[in-house]
Amino acid sequence: MRNKQDIMHEEKHFTASDLIRDIVIGMSDGLTVPFALAAGLSGTVDTTTLILTAGGAEIAAGSIAMGLGGYLAARTDAEHYESELKREQLEIIEVPEKEEEEVAEIFREYYLEEDQIQSIVATMRKHPDKWVDLMMKFELGLEKPDASRARNSAITIATSYIVGGLIPLLPYFFMASPSSGLEVSVIITLIALFIFGYIKGKFTGTSPWKSAFQTCIVGGLAAAVAFGLARLIS
Amino acid sequence: MRNKQDIMHEEKHFTASDLIRDIVIGMSDGLTVPFALAAGLSGTVDTTTLILTAGGAEIAAGSIAMGLGGYLAARTDAEHYESELKREQLEIIEVPEKEEEEVAEIFREYYLEEDQIQSIVATMRKHPDKWVDLMMKFELGLEKPDASRARNSAITIATSYIVGGLIPLLPYFFMASPSSGLEVSVIITLIALFIFGYIKGKFTGTSPWKSAFQTCIVGGLAAAVAFGLARLIS
Repeated sequence: MRNKQDIMHEEKHFTASDLIRDIVIGMSDGLTVPFALAAGLSGTVDTTTLILTAGGAEIAAGSIAMGLGGYLAARTDAEHYESELKREQLEIIEVPEKEEEEVAEIFREYYLEEDQIQSIVATMRKHPDKWVDLMMKFELGLEKPDASRARNSAITIATSYIVGGLIPLLPYFFMASPSSGLEVSVIITLIALFIFGYIKGKFTGTSPWKSAFQTCIVGGLAAAVAFGLARLIS
Repeated sequence: MRNKQDIMHEEKHFTASDLIRDIVIGMSDGLTVPFALAAGLSGTVDTTTLILTAGGAEIAAGSIAMGLGGYLAARTDAEHYESELKREQLEIIEVPEKEEEEVAEIFREYYLEEDQIQSIVATMRKHPDKWVDLMMKFELGLEKPDASRARNSAITIATSYIVGGLIPLLPYFFMASPSSGLEVSVIITLIALFIFGYIKGKFTGTSPWKSAFQTCIVGGLAAAVAFGLARLIS
């Protein structure tokens, strides 16, 4: 029996993790790349309009690439699962001895004796559906993908990217010059990266403070390199 | 026993997949986002220098965000694995009854009888290391992460992003005007996306042609929306 903390840990692990993961994926890139691009351009252009244009184009491109890309990747995962499922279903009918040997291989890893293994194999033969489930999970390491997952995942990632990307761009909208826009953008984005990294650490189980600093360093480094490279090119 | 095709299938599945996965992650975004950003800007600026500056800044920012972000994510996975491993190691000593019940829960799913389960539990008690392995894999679904994986993954993703991102930018370097640069960029990038999508399909097990068309559609759509939005803003 598990205590309440364990149950909450499990719930966190299994229920919220997909959503959180998608928000983290979208927002960490959304906060970082448009921020760095805007910072890079602010050292080489004279008007904020151009920064907002490039930033807006980047957010559009990035959110579509990540959202639609994520959607198609999730769909591919689902198709991959279905095709492997059909393959296993066929194999336990067509080459049962081979599949029985595969069951044995799985459990030999855990030092089970041959009579224990044969007993498990006999049970699997009685329940072909469970046999297929066993092969899917323990041989191939595949979990059944959620049908609505692909679409929800795409929307969450794209929205998080857009929200994350608008934060570093907003200052350029309100400030008169690229350089003053950059100053405010650096301040609010580093604060946002810090808060985001802290919360991300809370959810992924690492130290929130460490995660907060790491997230700031990635964003800051990307912006600094983009700034330097833009100066070099222009 | 497995035939040669199966062995090759497995090798593909287990050996190449991490590398391929990283190349796919880096290159699909690298080909798409800098392409779309450059396309978006080409409708609003007069010189190719600005497109190359923004594109270069984007590639720098994107490759750092993805590469370093990927490195830290892999490190977090490894730390998560270690902390869960310690937790399981502690639990089989401190609350063995609870862990035995968890083993039973795993195998009840597969319709094993109580005597079969008790026999498995007895074997696990004799081999605590294997017991921990069993819990890690079958209860938590965690595989031991490769130690060198985090660094290699970061380098592969970042390099793939840079290589992918340079393809759509090159035409702007050689052509005199943004509009002629855009024409050549659209042609070579769609060809590159098509080839990349085809190869990606080959490796991920989906239809190569379908994957090729989908990859082109994501890239083309991102570029079209970025183009429209950039016109709207500027």
